[in-house]
Amino acid sequence: MKIGFIGLGRMGENMVLNLIEHKHDVVVYNRSPEKTREIAKKGATPSYSINEMISKLPDRKIIWIMIKSGKPVDEMISQVLPFLTKGDIIIDGGNSYYKDSKKRYAQLKKKGLGFLDVGTSGGTSGARNGACMMIGGDKKDFGYCEKIFKDMCVDKGYGYFGSSGNGHYVKMVHNGIEYGMMAALAEGLTAIQKQDSKIDMKEVAKVYSHGSIVAGSLSSWLYDSYMVKGYLEEISGVVPKGETEEEMQKLIKEKNMKILAQAINMRKNTRKKASYEGKLISAMRNQFGGHAFNKK
Amino acid sequence: MKIGFIGLGRMGENMVLNLIEHKHDVVVYNRSPEKTREIAKKGATPSYSINEMISKLPDRKIIWIMIKSGKPVDEMISQVLPFLTKGDIIIDGGNSYYKDSKKRYAQLKKKGLGFLDVGTSGGTSGARNGACMMIGGDKKDFGYCEKIFKDMCVDKGYGYFGSSGNGHYVKMVHNGIEYGMMAALAEGLTAIQKQDSKIDMKEVAKVYSHGSIVAGSLSSWLYDSYMVKGYLEEISGVVPKGETEEEMQKLIKEKNMKILAQAINMRKNTRKKASYEGKLISAMRNQFGGHAFNKK
Repeated sequence: MKIGFIGLGRMGENMVLNLIEHKHDVVVYNRSPEKTREIAKKGATPSYSINEMISKLPDRKIIWIMIKSGKPVDEMISQVLPFLTKGDIIIDGGNSYYKDSKKRYAQLKKKGLGFLDVGTSGGTSGARNGACMMIGGDKKDFGYCEKIFKDMCVDKGYGYFGSSGNGHYVKMVHNGIEYGMMAALAEGLTAIQKQDSKIDMKEVAKVYSHGSIVAGSLSSWLYDSYMVKGYLEEISGVVPKGETEEEMQKLIKEKNMKILAQAINMRKNTRKKASYEGKLISAMRNQFGGHAFNKK
Repeated sequence: MKIGFIGLGRMGENMVLNLIEHKHDVVVYNRSPEKTREIAKKGATPSYSINEMISKLPDRKIIWIMIKSGKPVDEMISQVLPFLTKGDIIIDGGNSYYKDSKKRYAQLKKKGLGFLDVGTSGGTSGARNGACMMIGGDKKDFGYCEKIFKDMCVDKGYGYFGSSGNGHYVKMVHNGIEYGMMAALAEGLTAIQKQDSKIDMKEVAKVYSHGSIVAGSLSSWLYDSYMVKGYLEEISGVVPKGETEEEMQKLIKEKNMKILAQAINMRKNTRKKASYEGKLISAMRNQFGGHAFNKK
């Protein structure tokens, strides 16, 4: 399909390359034109203004927005809105708060436009090679775009969750589980390191990520962190505040999530005093999402 | 290799079948002879007393004990001890508390016998098809038995962690992480179910276990639980107290593990009031370990 794609950050760039590989024609736009020029060399159709992007899209436009959540999304929708006509669909694939997505859906619905909220998981390598997507919005719009989701995701990696906001809600909760799991892993490995400094932590991460009950994507990234020489040594042990931490606080209150609350506490404590837990959490975040970490 | 194997429970039985498949000659003994007769049909060498088992083993005996932790292990070691001679090795593959393993090691060392503490993970299907093992004890004894561990485990699935007790310690912490991860998953899925009863929970478990950051063994078992028709409906939502819960309490105190403490609280709360969290935790435990659950 031919689609517009706005935002070539860590996730966006990889998603566009993934789409191109699946024979989609992607008209890209990014605030800074360097990124656009770069990815045009790899097969994307470049555009250097919203106007230009729109002019290169067919009728019944699909426009994928992949930018920082909050105000930037509203601003971008305002910019795109004048160019859209009935039946066009905006997809927000970023980390928007689900209540904001509900509002945007209602706002666009009034104008006869479709809006899908898509929570994207799997990190940057997933974005490139097979992601995981949680989708909310009108079923007919989902159906119209389904081929895109199917192509971008691993087998069984996308799901439709009904009314608007549910895609970002299911993704938000996923992030909450992720916080808890990372905290559990960090707490455990710290307990081993404190127990006997002679235990080879790389070996621990190796067996935990191969055949154990706690094996999975996170424990594998942890193993990768130990495998890269000097990598963990370089990380400070302070977990910087992430983009999603605010909405996690809301989720904790709304649903009384105690594991999540404890996981957030662990991160906050690292900002008072750097810790081994903090080092491991920072490493996992950097491994899967390319998130920055504080250097020692 | 030719080894003795004591205990044909859920884990033991599968491990013996795994060993047989890898061309080891396994002389089995079990308290109730029915299990022994059964597995003899599948290629194990049966024995109906400790005496008989010993008589069928070569010099430099290896005896694998796979029984309930605590007193039963000490009693079994006492039963076997009179038949052993210098250089023989006892392997405890069960869920023994690591401090008990240290004591047993010291006790056997005095008599010139080897003792390896082996934490076994991966559940019953891992035991059958490729487990994960964490090993402590003398390096020379580990080396003598390594072929066995290699054959029973998935690739990169076993590790040697140095002095006696460290195998069971690394496994105990693994269990602690497992408690935390299960609680994080259960808490998250409950938040979704409470948010919108129209969301298809099976679809949530599907995407969470395919390409997401929280994908892994536990989320896959959760998906399996939703996939079996009527399975979750049958489970009560009360998590019965497991074999390892006591040592988790010790671990929490020793290492101030707050995620783990919260995870244990979640389980305890289900004993006061059944919950959706409890249902999901019971389901995962049953899926990977064949642990019993309370029926509704």
